[in-house]
Amino acid sequence: MDDIIAHYRLRADDAKEAADRAQKIAIEQSVECPLDAVRDPCIRNEIVGKVLQVRPAPDGLFDIAIELCAKTVGRDAGQLINMLFGNTSMHADVSLEDAEIPERLLDAFGGPNHGLAGVRALAGAPRRALTCSALKPQGMAPKELAALAREFARGGVDFIKDDHGLADQDYSPFAERVPACAAAMREAERETGRLTHYIPSLWGSFEEIDRRLELAEREGLRAAMLAPALIGVSDFVALKRRRPRFAFFAHPSFTGGARVSPQLYNKLYRIFGADAVIFPTFGGRFGYGRETCQAITEAARGPLGRLRPAAPAPAGGLTLRRVAETLDFYGPDTMLLIGGDLLLAERHELAGETAAFVRAVETFSFGGS
Amino acid sequence: MDDIIAHYRLRADDAKEAADRAQKIAIEQSVECPLDAVRDPCIRNEIVGKVLQVRPAPDGLFDIAIELCAKTVGRDAGQLINMLFGNTSMHADVSLEDAEIPERLLDAFGGPNHGLAGVRALAGAPRRALTCSALKPQGMAPKELAALAREFARGGVDFIKDDHGLADQDYSPFAERVPACAAAMREAERETGRLTHYIPSLWGSFEEIDRRLELAEREGLRAAMLAPALIGVSDFVALKRRRPRFAFFAHPSFTGGARVSPQLYNKLYRIFGADAVIFPTFGGRFGYGRETCQAITEAARGPLGRLRPAAPAPAGGLTLRRVAETLDFYGPDTMLLIGGDLLLAERHELAGETAAFVRAVETFSFGGS
Repeated sequence: MDDIIAHYRLRADDAKEAADRAQKIAIEQSVECPLDAVRDPCIRNEIVGKVLQVRPAPDGLFDIAIELCAKTVGRDAGQLINMLFGNTSMHADVSLEDAEIPERLLDAFGGPNHGLAGVRALAGAPRRALTCSALKPQGMAPKELAALAREFARGGVDFIKDDHGLADQDYSPFAERVPACAAAMREAERETGRLTHYIPSLWGSFEEIDRRLELAEREGLRAAMLAPALIGVSDFVALKRRRPRFAFFAHPSFTGGARVSPQLYNKLYRIFGADAVIFPTFGGRFGYGRETCQAITEAARGPLGRLRPAAPAPAGGLTLRRVAETLDFYGPDTMLLIGGDLLLAERHELAGETAAFVRAVETFSFGGS
Repeated sequence: MDDIIAHYRLRADDAKEAADRAQKIAIEQSVECPLDAVRDPCIRNEIVGKVLQVRPAPDGLFDIAIELCAKTVGRDAGQLINMLFGNTSMHADVSLEDAEIPERLLDAFGGPNHGLAGVRALAGAPRRALTCSALKPQGMAPKELAALAREFARGGVDFIKDDHGLADQDYSPFAERVPACAAAMREAERETGRLTHYIPSLWGSFEEIDRRLELAEREGLRAAMLAPALIGVSDFVALKRRRPRFAFFAHPSFTGGARVSPQLYNKLYRIFGADAVIFPTFGGRFGYGRETCQAITEAARGPLGRLRPAAPAPAGGLTLRRVAETLDFYGPDTMLLIGGDLLLAERHELAGETAAFVRAVETFSFGGS
């Protein structure tokens, strides 16, 4: 397969209307002008999108498959999404469900630098599920966040991420927060003999983010988190290349699940370079069901050309009590992220509560054996 | 008003459920953790989002207004959207309808460098409506695109934009396309005595885009187009500051109208620096109604703190026959963008067809007087 196959779901009154709309989408997502204005036969044959399939789906919807010429993408991540769903996103009755990306393009983006195995290596955990917590609430000063991080680290968690709301606010400037939290990790390591990895949240323009990664690198950090849907996927690819030492955690902020499927977002994030993908797991604060979570997990770590698997990191309302159920569902190639539930503990109990989370994950017996 | 007021629309079974969801959104979009885990009273009072209003709307929906602390945004555009709709975008039953942005934040972003008046100055047209066409279909080589552009320019159109699908493809590399089209503008100017402005489409990472703007600047270009939703709004702000000579045209690609209102997208684009905003007009290929187009126009050129008005540029299926109706609706402070409809003309008729478009706009008598 040399070209892209995009899968849309469309509302239409009948099969005829669906076929007509499919043809319109094929034109909108390729040449974007009346076919009669396309005079060059090569462009007609090669560049104009081709409807491959129009198939009825439940609830008056239709599944549509359209082949899009990979040459229209060049090698740019933003342009890939532009060609998949740029203008069609403005039609409220169409969603983008999936996209098959040709191997040549997969290789051009290159996927994760480290992937699941690299994230495991950071934690020194080749087989078991991984653990992660989150620094919240925002509004806290760097010193307070660092104190909180130290308690999590004393509890032995593998990773601690910034709340994705932590950016570069006056009450918590990046340049103060990151050294403070990095120092807290080193302090806790001296006490426990084990290094917890702090994952700062990156916002800003490309140059701001790059400077922040430089600072994080000087502080010895090895992982960072960003929201590709907001910072721009092309920048994400550029940053992954510019800072290959880092494992990148993709945050799902602004992925607006209803119009682009969560599994496709996570597949694209892996293709663009995410080493771990954070997503809302079933039964928590968000409405994703088990099927969606299964599809996201497959997108993160299932076969995808020559690309490394990424670590799926279910989150969004996980609790200590749900560790067993969650591990049973996702298996050991997973990073469990519990933030708010741990923070309900009083400060002097936080390290102990975190240790209980870590123990529950590390001692979990898969398959009940 | 010092803080942000975000307006959401939510599906709920009754007012009690709506109030409960509103409170959850207020937490999700601020501290993102259980309220019991927020121990600092200052954070509780200042940082946690506040539900200002829950009001029934038609069709079982509810309108919700939430105050969000502006300090959580810092001065970053991506973070502004993250705080408005980052995680809540993943709830399929909520849409973000509008946001009131405090003046301090408006001034921090600064809005358009040139705005409508600057775009008018480029065209040498202080009062009348402006005209624009588009280079399509993609797949054409730079020489062919330049020949097409020359015909449009000979027809006297004010602006010619790249199709937003034109990026940096092997069949049309940016570094060849832009000099070729810029030269075609100069050639046509020698013939007609009037300079048409060519607007290249920008894709890529920040650094790629910045290099492309540098090249465009060397070629004497004064305007460029980009899709902030895909290249990243923070980069857009940084580029606007780095390249103040350019008028920036915001393309609506990937703005997925159903979940974030088109008027808010366009308001944000103006705040971040768009001098002109392109959007699908009523009655064309997209489903936006007159009311939505009116709201977009208001967002583009209505009062907004100290920010310059931007030029609204209705597009997306406009035809020569619809010029009068369209001008009657939008008035003279508007740029009409017709692409595909002009391209239906045979090549030797294209300059004449473009001239007819230009004449229809320039001689239009508002109010039928």
